[in-house]
Amino acid sequence: MAMKKYEKNGTVSYCLGTTLVFELLNRKPEAATKIYISPKQNRDETYTKLVTLAKSHHLPVIENNEKIFKELSDKDNVMAIGEFNKFSDTLIKDNPHLVLVNPSNMGNLGTIIRCMAGFGVLDLAIIRPAADIFDPKVVRSSMGAIFSIRFHYFDTFGDYQKEYGNHHMYPFMLQAKFALQEAKIEKPYSIVLGNEATGLDRSFLDVGTPLIIPHSKLIDSLNLDNAAAIALYEFTK
Amino acid sequence: MAMKKYEKNGTVSYCLGTTLVFELLNRKPEAATKIYISPKQNRDETYTKLVTLAKSHHLPVIENNEKIFKELSDKDNVMAIGEFNKFSDTLIKDNPHLVLVNPSNMGNLGTIIRCMAGFGVLDLAIIRPAADIFDPKVVRSSMGAIFSIRFHYFDTFGDYQKEYGNHHMYPFMLQAKFALQEAKIEKPYSIVLGNEATGLDRSFLDVGTPLIIPHSKLIDSLNLDNAAAIALYEFTK
Repeated sequence: MAMKKYEKNGTVSYCLGTTLVFELLNRKPEAATKIYISPKQNRDETYTKLVTLAKSHHLPVIENNEKIFKELSDKDNVMAIGEFNKFSDTLIKDNPHLVLVNPSNMGNLGTIIRCMAGFGVLDLAIIRPAADIFDPKVVRSSMGAIFSIRFHYFDTFGDYQKEYGNHHMYPFMLQAKFALQEAKIEKPYSIVLGNEATGLDRSFLDVGTPLIIPHSKLIDSLNLDNAAAIALYEFTK
Repeated sequence: MAMKKYEKNGTVSYCLGTTLVFELLNRKPEAATKIYISPKQNRDETYTKLVTLAKSHHLPVIENNEKIFKELSDKDNVMAIGEFNKFSDTLIKDNPHLVLVNPSNMGNLGTIIRCMAGFGVLDLAIIRPAADIFDPKVVRSSMGAIFSIRFHYFDTFGDYQKEYGNHHMYPFMLQAKFALQEAKIEKPYSIVLGNEATGLDRSFLDVGTPLIIPHSKLIDSLNLDNAAAIALYEFTK
């Protein structure tokens, strides 16, 4: 993806592709600002549905801007783009949370958001420095699930803890004593996962109940999005 | 990654980066044919360890071929490349198997292999058409775990079934009646997963015990490597 037009410090972002535009309009219409439809898009049933839905939300539909498709995507098959205002939410206090400390890979972040939506854990805390959740790559790899969850960035884990002191914290780390499958899960909980390369630092051994997903010595660690998937599955099943 | 030099129909492939070269030499030295070390690599402890290990396996160590680094990688930080003969294995009959039917995404395939190694499921059947397991992208995303597992390609699922009729088959599909967490797992088992976009076709409803990983209506399906991670975790815990 080219993404020349997307600006990390700007106020808007974009979702690319018809499926994602429908997700935006159905899940988060209040954030949407504009819909672009490619001049190459056939005037078929999908087209009519998209235009009708956009108009029902009083959104401008722009059909003659071929340039923006080249600026935002290097794929030829993107037929619709949704522009939306960046948003942020307050996490719900009594809900389960996922906390990502310094996630750096945009693909992983999107996949994890999709998985959260799948398991009904809808509140995400992200501790900086971290990947930009509004980057169109994250939006795309979330398959639009970003429009179904709440998230909030915090400068430090301490800032998050201060606000959600009622939560039982479960940091996932290789140095933990207890295995995930033996964990007694108390609600409301926070599943806490570290950076792809470095994990959580040892200070998290003093936070809540550290857990490990046991694995063989053939690998150093599980991929972050796989660890998140397994944790979300086990905590919600 | 550039990968101009890698040929799908050739007899050799490459692993890029010092960590992967160590994995090759430690786990699968019999497949290794040659080690390249970048002229930019410092003559430090890692260098000495790598050269000593390669020589202990009687492998040529080539230190003046800067070109191959440009041909195989677009990253500047690759300091070592391992060349190895493509290999194939017979799966072990009484072991648990993972069966991937038409996997198409190379990153997913590598991540799944890493996860298999993590959970000690070391026998992988791949049903064609499928991604090329020897593509350096797969090798890299497996973090070298490809050298720790056995795998075999089959032209059809029927061919696999004929050979491993003793296995209890567990196809994962959205149309299944039983949830993963309720499954009675009989050994030896095969976890069967479909293509990223299309899943398994309905004919698999008649194969063994179809299972579903229940998820909310907010998403269409879980990402393939997340589904594989959850299945491997649950079957082996």
